[in-house]
Amino acid sequence: MPAELSTVLLVERHRGTLDKALEAVRTRAYWSPYPEHPKAYADADEGRAAFEALLGHRFPLEQPGTDEWTDGEHSPYGLELGVEYPHPDVEVLLPAMRAGMAAWRDAGPEARALVCLEILARINARTHEFAHAVMHTSGQAFTMSFQAGGPHAQDRGLEAVAYAYVEQVRTPESADWVKPQGKRDPLSLRKAFTAVPRGIGLVIGCNTFPTWNGYPGLFASLATGNAVLVKPHPRAVLPLALTVAVARDVLAEAGFSPDLVCLAAEKPGEGLAKTLALRPEVKVIDYTGSTAFGDWLEANARQAQVYTEKAGVNTVVIDSTDDYRGMLSNLAFSLSLYSGQMCTTPQNLLIPRDGITTESGPRTYDEVVADIAGAVEGLLGDDARANALLGALVNPEVKARLDAAPGIGEVALASRAVTHPEFPDAVVRTPALLKLDSAKPEAEAAFMVECFGPVSFAVAVDSTDAALALLRRTIREKGAMTVAAYTTSPEVERQVEEVCWEECAQLSLNLTGGVYVNQTAAFSDFHGSGGNPAANAALCDGAFVASRFRMVEVRRPA
Amino acid sequence: MPAELSTVLLVERHRGTLDKALEAVRTRAYWSPYPEHPKAYADADEGRAAFEALLGHRFPLEQPGTDEWTDGEHSPYGLELGVEYPHPDVEVLLPAMRAGMAAWRDAGPEARALVCLEILARINARTHEFAHAVMHTSGQAFTMSFQAGGPHAQDRGLEAVAYAYVEQVRTPESADWVKPQGKRDPLSLRKAFTAVPRGIGLVIGCNTFPTWNGYPGLFASLATGNAVLVKPHPRAVLPLALTVAVARDVLAEAGFSPDLVCLAAEKPGEGLAKTLALRPEVKVIDYTGSTAFGDWLEANARQAQVYTEKAGVNTVVIDSTDDYRGMLSNLAFSLSLYSGQMCTTPQNLLIPRDGITTESGPRTYDEVVADIAGAVEGLLGDDARANALLGALVNPEVKARLDAAPGIGEVALASRAVTHPEFPDAVVRTPALLKLDSAKPEAEAAFMVECFGPVSFAVAVDSTDAALALLRRTIREKGAMTVAAYTTSPEVERQVEEVCWEECAQLSLNLTGGVYVNQTAAFSDFHGSGGNPAANAALCDGAFVASRFRMVEVRRPA
Repeated sequence: MPAELSTVLLVERHRGTLDKALEAVRTRAYWSPYPEHPKAYADADEGRAAFEALLGHRFPLEQPGTDEWTDGEHSPYGLELGVEYPHPDVEVLLPAMRAGMAAWRDAGPEARALVCLEILARINARTHEFAHAVMHTSGQAFTMSFQAGGPHAQDRGLEAVAYAYVEQVRTPESADWVKPQGKRDPLSLRKAFTAVPRGIGLVIGCNTFPTWNGYPGLFASLATGNAVLVKPHPRAVLPLALTVAVARDVLAEAGFSPDLVCLAAEKPGEGLAKTLALRPEVKVIDYTGSTAFGDWLEANARQAQVYTEKAGVNTVVIDSTDDYRGMLSNLAFSLSLYSGQMCTTPQNLLIPRDGITTESGPRTYDEVVADIAGAVEGLLGDDARANALLGALVNPEVKARLDAAPGIGEVALASRAVTHPEFPDAVVRTPALLKLDSAKPEAEAAFMVECFGPVSFAVAVDSTDAALALLRRTIREKGAMTVAAYTTSPEVERQVEEVCWEECAQLSLNLTGGVYVNQTAAFSDFHGSGGNPAANAALCDGAFVASRFRMVEVRRPA
Repeated sequence: MPAELSTVLLVERHRGTLDKALEAVRTRAYWSPYPEHPKAYADADEGRAAFEALLGHRFPLEQPGTDEWTDGEHSPYGLELGVEYPHPDVEVLLPAMRAGMAAWRDAGPEARALVCLEILARINARTHEFAHAVMHTSGQAFTMSFQAGGPHAQDRGLEAVAYAYVEQVRTPESADWVKPQGKRDPLSLRKAFTAVPRGIGLVIGCNTFPTWNGYPGLFASLATGNAVLVKPHPRAVLPLALTVAVARDVLAEAGFSPDLVCLAAEKPGEGLAKTLALRPEVKVIDYTGSTAFGDWLEANARQAQVYTEKAGVNTVVIDSTDDYRGMLSNLAFSLSLYSGQMCTTPQNLLIPRDGITTESGPRTYDEVVADIAGAVEGLLGDDARANALLGALVNPEVKARLDAAPGIGEVALASRAVTHPEFPDAVVRTPALLKLDSAKPEAEAAFMVECFGPVSFAVAVDSTDAALALLRRTIREKGAMTVAAYTTSPEVERQVEEVCWEECAQLSLNLTGGVYVNQTAAFSDFHGSGGNPAANAALCDGAFVASRFRMVEVRRPA
């Protein structure tokens, strides 16, 4: 029986997109095939209806080895989702997944990439439905759920496919090797090279960005020939269950085993990730989450290639600026977006205790802190805009940290509860900003750990030199997903660059407009560096894909 | 002061070679810039004299932090080399190495690659001198020391430089990113991308192939901006000391710190590799040697990227052939070359107990074994040829294993001592071949461990199917650097390919001429796969270089 999705059809549909993605990662210019504006998608009402139709039902996923069904997602906006997902008997599921791998391997890098692009295209076509699923698991506001959970996540998935494809085709499928032997006949061999998968790739999803953080690993592993088992965060299953369902449909239509992509939902308190991570069949692991579990995976899942994004402490060095208002509004937005629940949100704002220079004269430390606080208040003064930016607190732990924040230091900006018009049970909070003095040991104990959520620290430092030293120590000891700096001094600029080069952190300089330190663009920006304790991998580079497969050579006399 | 070796000069000298290397790894066709025939090099006498002038003296290497000098190399051919090497005070040496890294990073990928090519060119020009150093530390016969220790090692070094270069320039140095915003002004950023090194790369050398196994890691780390500390095997220091000296000269002449490449010779029984491997400054480790220490490094040197080549059990599946004589002579050569002291030498020859088919009719198991033994005897019957092929046993442990071999099984071919005309103290031995029956548990206990040295096993198996099952289990449990198979059956060929694809091992099929399973050619063949327990890395692929650096991005408003 011929596959419904033939390679010819897939080439016609997606080869052009793949080529553009390959070009984009080479030039790093702006590009995306997936529009980010909700109005670009016609299915707003159908998407919402499709999401709502899923609620309270068993999720339609026919996988081998389902021993029971599990649920328990509670939307940060107050809904009980009530969707049931298959819980795996891994002794049945893992062999079934492996059974499809030989044909998937034999299909070769291009066919695999095109199947992945078809999966992404179908996900893209259902972006509205996915946006509601992301919103009601992550707590992101709708627009962010739509963009970050939709096209931006799809971009990151496509970027991973592009890297995976190019890495595999660096070596030709075959080669004729002819070595001269002087007057004797040359030695001649015919060589065949096959990209072979490592095994099963395990994707361990996170609560805040189930698709954005899940897609790179999922698509990188799948495109390199592995089967992929997706173990979502128990509070954010739905977006990844939808993803798995789409992937299975496409794989089957293209003539491959749908079991190449499966879902592993866990029972409450089960700790399924730990069990799966140590299975011998699991050879690749992608994880986003706490440092403790990430470190555990790196130390214990020794049979696997482990890619982790863990916690970090993100710093902003404020030395000077020639656009003070631009700086304030840019920082206010970064601190507010999704209530600071991004791995990229700045936490420590390092400000010289003697103040900074601006285009309109010096500003003292106290003035700068008050002005940042004021900018946040101005940005979030209107409840509708606040709701649209903040979203809801993703889980009770974040709220507990926010509630405890006033005990850490002098409150420069108090958090405020915002009522959500549509979802009164949503826990919506503006960010808190606290003053800390770097000279005080108890202050350092507070700001040198990640305080995930809408809590930031305005840290008074002796000087910009002291700020750079603290920046260096923070990256080296705690890691950083992002670093930002504001300075009008070329010398300081060079010094902060040097710190970031030496400690391996991604730097944004003097952002005062509509680009924010906590946002990165696929195909152009690297997310994380992989070179400091916040993450052992970057999205997306050669290192992220190169170890997900191996090249096996068969040589024979020509 | 301008550098003696300007970039302009280096481009003129080496950019063409780099481009050819890049092309070769893309096409995998035969190529090498370094001739392998000794006669292609004019310096035979000077090379020998240069080697001899080193003996009994302190090796000329001015490194920071030398706290004492250490010696102790004893040639497998009987000479006491009597060369003294600097022993490091690591508290002084490592900071001195790090001090040069910022300038080396700033030089960029092309300048680093060209400096590496100049180092390789100077090593190449002294190949005769290196050959004697390799011969009198590894025990290889002169021709092999010359080829494998000279041009072939240089090839592997150049291959690593090519991979490192291309990996770094996949991302442009800078990019203009302009994102349309509908009717508003577009968002514009200027982005700069810098390949930054991880830290100090530690190369832990081996006894048998100090340059061939040492150069890929050394040059991959250096070309990606790291400093490199070379910790040679205590019995094979000289070839790597020469390498380090050349590298230091070139770096200094090119205007960089010579301390970017240093030697760390150890005192007897010191275990210096263990100490160095856990230093926080060491971020990359390349190791060739025992499984026990390789596993220890992978488990414990968690601050570093660890690339290991460890032990494996290499298998030859003998099913059938249409060139029986060719098979016999090819196998005889593979078993004899360097007395089987290659990580790629076949150990287990799996032969159906009912025999095999050949172009001139069936041969029983006993006949095949006797014919292989006869082919080895024929190949090594002449002492001059035996000496030229075998070399000397590298160390007493290999001799002890060989001496114990007759106790393992029925002797099909006894080892014989060969006298070396020039070096009467050399321990030269022909290989032993033992018969084992796979049905007997005590036999499996023998053939399922690596017996490094000139000992092979003719293992009787129930059938070719049984051979394939045993092959699969051997690769999966013990690893394999090489697999070979002889068959005239397309079906068996497909089955053995499937085993090698699934278990991730490099396969040579039906080699009957002048290419041997234990030899690989740089730019074309992968050495190891990185996907089975024999090695976690392959020479050379993207995975071998991609994690040796990280890309740090600095973005600012355009």
